[in-house]
Amino acid sequence: MINYPSGQQPPERAKAHPLAKTSAKPVNYGSRGMTLEEQINRSNQYYLSHNLAVIHKKPTPIQVVKVNYPKRSAARITEAYYRQASTTDYNGVYQGYYIDFEAKETRNKTRFPLSNLPLHQQQHMKQCQEQGGISFLLLSFRSHQKIYLLPFKAFERFQAESKQQSLPYEFVEANGYLCQTGYQPMIDYLAALDCYLERGER
Amino acid sequence: MINYPSGQQPPERAKAHPLAKTSAKPVNYGSRGMTLEEQINRSNQYYLSHNLAVIHKKPTPIQVVKVNYPKRSAARITEAYYRQASTTDYNGVYQGYYIDFEAKETRNKTRFPLSNLPLHQQQHMKQCQEQGGISFLLLSFRSHQKIYLLPFKAFERFQAESKQQSLPYEFVEANGYLCQTGYQPMIDYLAALDCYLERGER
Repeated sequence: MINYPSGQQPPERAKAHPLAKTSAKPVNYGSRGMTLEEQINRSNQYYLSHNLAVIHKKPTPIQVVKVNYPKRSAARITEAYYRQASTTDYNGVYQGYYIDFEAKETRNKTRFPLSNLPLHQQQHMKQCQEQGGISFLLLSFRSHQKIYLLPFKAFERFQAESKQQSLPYEFVEANGYLCQTGYQPMIDYLAALDCYLERGER
Repeated sequence: MINYPSGQQPPERAKAHPLAKTSAKPVNYGSRGMTLEEQINRSNQYYLSHNLAVIHKKPTPIQVVKVNYPKRSAARITEAYYRQASTTDYNGVYQGYYIDFEAKETRNKTRFPLSNLPLHQQQHMKQCQEQGGISFLLLSFRSHQKIYLLPFKAFERFQAESKQQSLPYEFVEANGYLCQTGYQPMIDYLAALDCYLERGER
């Protein structure tokens, strides 16, 4: 989720070690110390429990190579590798709309580097949009402590008009919808989505 | 995907070893020897490449316990376990509709045992339906060589009216939509869905 120099893979540990997310860490209901993914997952739990939307994070795809099947206990995977996801991380349904999005984070103050967003994810968002769904990006600018919902259509427009390999912060500010953050939901991206839908540009 | 006596877990091997699905096996474009999951995945590929729908199988959720990070090569997971999925296996978007389904198979000739369908999956399908999506079951009766799309609403009606722990084949025949099977797509469940949508009972 963090911005790395292009070509370099982020270490898998931060993203892909589910136990690290649920164990040892102290309970902290503020957003500090919580990853963007955790905050979104909690927001989704809130939406689900209040019958506002059914949106889940997809499991991280893992290629299993070796499994042991001990008697009387659970199958144990002894060799496996992370695979690249073929879609975005989140999808679901909100008031009859198919929702599809990817969440990304940067510490960069002035730009959001597109090296963060693989082409096949862009492709997937485009396909969903064309099929009548709503695709967007949730972009977290940590240094500004702001999270924007950027509709895929705005993103696509930027790409058509610019050769730049990163989104200027001003572009996101002007074309995105600021998400209120708080306690419940932690990131109210559906309220931001409502603003977008009300403008009827979908 | 196969029917096991209630309470007994199916062996994880059949379902959860992705390598087993893509290696050693001879290329066979008929449906024989192909699992239901493989047939659905190929149908989804067909739908996607023809811009008819964007529907993907979710990755199998895996709890990672230990990972090695060797220098200059991919992170290697050395201890992990299969987790129970919290949702259904398939979802996506079709002509603006949010689609959510679970595919199950039985060799039973007369009934489809509900022990095949965990409560939390039923709950998830209900939530999606209430949020304006379309939930259904794809039920494959191997002994009849027939695959039915059973709308979640019909399934829910059955449960409200009956205490039975299995769906009679006649009920599925009468309330489900038969899926044409063939070469491309292998299982044309979207054509069956069209029939359902045309009846306007959603």
